[in-house]
Amino acid sequence: MRTDIREMAAANAPWLSVDADDSDVVFSSRIRLARNIARWPFPPRAEPHDREAVLEATRESLLAHAQFSPTSEISFDGLEKGDRRVLIERRLATKELFDGRPGCAIFVAEDEAASVMVNEEDHLRIQSILPGLQLDLAYDIATAIDDHLSTDLGIAFHDDLGYLTSCPSNVGTGLRASVMLHLPGLVLAETINECLAAIQQLGLAVRGVAGEGSETHGNLFQLSNQSTLGETEAEIISGLARATQHLVNCERNARKKLVEQVSDRLADYVGRAFGCLQHAHWLTTDEALMYLSALRLGTDMKMFSQMESEWVNGLWLAVQSGHLQARDDGTGPRAKRPVRRARLVRARLAEVTRPD
Amino acid sequence: MRTDIREMAAANAPWLSVDADDSDVVFSSRIRLARNIARWPFPPRAEPHDREAVLEATRESLLAHAQFSPTSEISFDGLEKGDRRVLIERRLATKELFDGRPGCAIFVAEDEAASVMVNEEDHLRIQSILPGLQLDLAYDIATAIDDHLSTDLGIAFHDDLGYLTSCPSNVGTGLRASVMLHLPGLVLAETINECLAAIQQLGLAVRGVAGEGSETHGNLFQLSNQSTLGETEAEIISGLARATQHLVNCERNARKKLVEQVSDRLADYVGRAFGCLQHAHWLTTDEALMYLSALRLGTDMKMFSQMESEWVNGLWLAVQSGHLQARDDGTGPRAKRPVRRARLVRARLAEVTRPD
Repeated sequence: MRTDIREMAAANAPWLSVDADDSDVVFSSRIRLARNIARWPFPPRAEPHDREAVLEATRESLLAHAQFSPTSEISFDGLEKGDRRVLIERRLATKELFDGRPGCAIFVAEDEAASVMVNEEDHLRIQSILPGLQLDLAYDIATAIDDHLSTDLGIAFHDDLGYLTSCPSNVGTGLRASVMLHLPGLVLAETINECLAAIQQLGLAVRGVAGEGSETHGNLFQLSNQSTLGETEAEIISGLARATQHLVNCERNARKKLVEQVSDRLADYVGRAFGCLQHAHWLTTDEALMYLSALRLGTDMKMFSQMESEWVNGLWLAVQSGHLQARDDGTGPRAKRPVRRARLVRARLAEVTRPD
Repeated sequence: MRTDIREMAAANAPWLSVDADDSDVVFSSRIRLARNIARWPFPPRAEPHDREAVLEATRESLLAHAQFSPTSEISFDGLEKGDRRVLIERRLATKELFDGRPGCAIFVAEDEAASVMVNEEDHLRIQSILPGLQLDLAYDIATAIDDHLSTDLGIAFHDDLGYLTSCPSNVGTGLRASVMLHLPGLVLAETINECLAAIQQLGLAVRGVAGEGSETHGNLFQLSNQSTLGETEAEIISGLARATQHLVNCERNARKKLVEQVSDRLADYVGRAFGCLQHAHWLTTDEALMYLSALRLGTDMKMFSQMESEWVNGLWLAVQSGHLQARDDGTGPRAKRPVRRARLVRARLAEVTRPD
């Protein structure tokens, strides 16, 4: 049941498809449920044999779950650093899983839309991630797995508090709902800060895509619920969906105004990004993501005839360090990463821009 | 004898040819002689009728000078701002000529290699400008005109001080010898400042190409003699030529090291400049010159098959505001200059990079 991570890295992540509602602005929707099994100590206090037992029980339950199968199991024991990066970049694993303690693993559905992390901060982190704005469907997928595991394993639940978790910030629903938004229009219009400040006042958290405390990369912003207590799951999800829809409208208006009012500047922004990607020989991740953001804006606004948004999304994932390293590009292991990244981007762009 | 400045602007300046010694580093060599006619007050104290008389006498003398003919006379009376800019960008005129006082004019030889400014700071500013490192030839050209005018007009000369000029900084030889150097290698290697500091210790002045007090644009530096007193013309010129040759060697070594040690970075620097020029829709002069400097480095280092250094030099002149404005590009007079500049550059690059 082990997955070949290099094979996985060769394909685009399914949540980067653009064949979904609002995917011109919403990269992806994600639901994560934090759960713990009542009969074992929670991970921060668990002994190795507890952790192994959690993993074994989870595996047994998941294998019997028809909807989730066929699953891949990826154990973190002995996993190479590059492979770990691939899993993080595909948002199937977190850095916390990589502390090297025993019993850490992830189970991944064939389409990567559903996964379960075992022995991260909590025993179970059930996740569903889908392209576009599809929070309800993602919640349904995660809940189906949650129901199944709960029945089999006996989940720690308190009548007053709700689901119990290692960190108090997750107690209650154990639910983190989030969307990843591409907001280049608001960034270019310089109205992004006021928009995001308004969102924060609604009790939502705004982060760069790489997670807590990180800077934004390539005009991507992650919106998620701040608290897991005091609201039902349905309220949390509908609140986030409303805020997302509001930002989607703001972003579309901003893009429309850019075309109407500063079309030269817009063409310049997108054109230069394209030119740099086409001819750079040294590209850092941050820079590549920033230029790809501009390219994606260009494809969304139909500024390129030969290039489509989903193709740009594929490159967006391919330039990230883990995916880059997983790819044998014939330069040998000694070529520096920014050189390899630039080479990959030049080659891909040459394919699509070659005249017919 | 009037020149059509738009016609002039359509062609490249002859000093931007690369068919001369050391033109991989030395853009041009320039000799300027400051002279005044003894019988009239110097320009700062001259009345309009004095200035007109100087112009008339100079015209008469030059027309009789076989070597200099055929000359064009460009009067500054009623010259449009854009046309004035063209003359400054071709280095045939200075801003000081544009103060609107009567009698200001320039006489220009057919090949633009020799010219005489009348009623600038001094009655006569005799200039010769040639591509590459050709200070001796430029001096010979300027001196031939000087000899002719001196014989005809009677030049203000003092046995102890030498030639008398309006500003004491030109007294003596009245000679300003200068070279324009393209030093992207030393700038990239970050050794430019120490190199230029050494040059300044030799008593030479270093400036950006746009003249005194200006920043450097596009890695171009102007080297000239600081003092006009106490050295002979031959000493001034050979001192400048030696320093220039030294910098030429430094620059060539720097370029060689870039290829050997950081070829990816070099390819990146040149490639991005190319990509931005190919796809920008908004280009300021400074930015265009910076990218064209990189392109010129690329052509000098044989990094492009379809593009030659002289072609880049032509674009270097064409993107400057006056030349840009003199060109009817069909966008109409209301198109903003950075937009027109970007359009011009994209069109020119499309011509050379179109596959055969």
